[in-house]
Amino acid sequence: MTYCVGLFLRDGLVMLGDTRTNAGVDNVSTFSKLYTTGTEGERALCLLSAGNLGVTQAVWNRLEEGVTLDDTPHTLLSVPSMFRAAQLVGAAIRAVYAADGPALKAQGLSFSASFLVGGQIKGGPPHLFLVYSAGNFIQATPDTPFLQIGEHKYGKPVITRVLTHDTSLGDGVKLGLVSMDDTMRTNLSVGLPLDLLVYRTDTLTLPPVRRIGAEDSYFAGLREGWSSRMRQTFRDLPLPEWL
Amino acid sequence: MTYCVGLFLRDGLVMLGDTRTNAGVDNVSTFSKLYTTGTEGERALCLLSAGNLGVTQAVWNRLEEGVTLDDTPHTLLSVPSMFRAAQLVGAAIRAVYAADGPALKAQGLSFSASFLVGGQIKGGPPHLFLVYSAGNFIQATPDTPFLQIGEHKYGKPVITRVLTHDTSLGDGVKLGLVSMDDTMRTNLSVGLPLDLLVYRTDTLTLPPVRRIGAEDSYFAGLREGWSSRMRQTFRDLPLPEWL
Repeated sequence: MTYCVGLFLRDGLVMLGDTRTNAGVDNVSTFSKLYTTGTEGERALCLLSAGNLGVTQAVWNRLEEGVTLDDTPHTLLSVPSMFRAAQLVGAAIRAVYAADGPALKAQGLSFSASFLVGGQIKGGPPHLFLVYSAGNFIQATPDTPFLQIGEHKYGKPVITRVLTHDTSLGDGVKLGLVSMDDTMRTNLSVGLPLDLLVYRTDTLTLPPVRRIGAEDSYFAGLREGWSSRMRQTFRDLPLPEWL
Repeated sequence: MTYCVGLFLRDGLVMLGDTRTNAGVDNVSTFSKLYTTGTEGERALCLLSAGNLGVTQAVWNRLEEGVTLDDTPHTLLSVPSMFRAAQLVGAAIRAVYAADGPALKAQGLSFSASFLVGGQIKGGPPHLFLVYSAGNFIQATPDTPFLQIGEHKYGKPVITRVLTHDTSLGDGVKLGLVSMDDTMRTNLSVGLPLDLLVYRTDTLTLPPVRRIGAEDSYFAGLREGWSSRMRQTFRDLPLPEWL
């Protein structure tokens, strides 16, 4: 399993993913699921992936090599808009499906892959898409300013209670990390280290990817601070008079 | 779907379930999934059910009618211990499976039923069990002092962060209601009103079942109070210095 979340905020995007892959609980590994590409001052894109690692890595390799869209070969560095970028990722997934789908099916293996595609290309605003394994996609809007892939349930309640499109990037980072922690606490197939990218609207510059491991003192403090404040909040909430 | 949760606390048990049943989003109904039985001063038992309503209601009817356990017909009012009560619920599920399982299978329908069985019988401490559709079961312990059935994922993070066996009954009620709210906010197949029972250790008396609907002012205040405190807590948590 995997957990990746993207936040679509007025001030920019927060993209966060874990790095655990597994072929059973007795075979776990660490692979980054976060990919970036861009041209300084012109475009900055970030992808997060979930699903079969052989499929998702093949999709990324095809995107780097070039994928045909409307009869023209393109990479994420040549498409003219974020909408076309999401289409290109969908086309790459379909190309991998055409190449590997039948062989996977013959061995009873599922073809699974989904991607969060976030970023900005000069001339347009930032966008955040979720591209499904069939290559179709949806995009985040101010009404529902986040998208998740993988094990999405444990980490969702905290986001739906707190997040709005106007949430600051800093609070978005805290929220993403707590949502990830909520997931990791119960699902062992989601694990440290994490990859985090925070993109600020209109910078058109790829920021560094922050890797957060068990030794990260900020994350450790956040986890403990959040839990202790939750416990205190429960003590503070009023009791029902009928109890 | 359904969400029911039982808390196994030093001071007693908190048993909470929703009442929504559905055969598709275009066919929802309200049915209580909480059953109680007892003998004043001698035993108090509470069951919560999830799964196929035809199966779970049949299990309860068989339990009222009497089920054979070790060659002797028993009801929940005659079994000598909570362990035997859980066994009896398992035997009732197996009897319904024997009666209805083949016909359900023939029409491609799944036989699904699970029960939380909580309570106390004189001479023993309180217990909380989760009985599976195969009739086998597990029980809550101080290490993991809660059990869930149905849609368990959304409501789990808040419980795992806050709950211990020493949590008070009052805080347990708040926690159960917030856990339920976390679930209802995303899964439409879990819905109001709720049925809540709070059993105090060694009272051996069935308390009244509290029904909590949309008009319940305590629950409305708790939901809003919890959300607003969470938003405030996120603002208060420190920012990473590297952002």
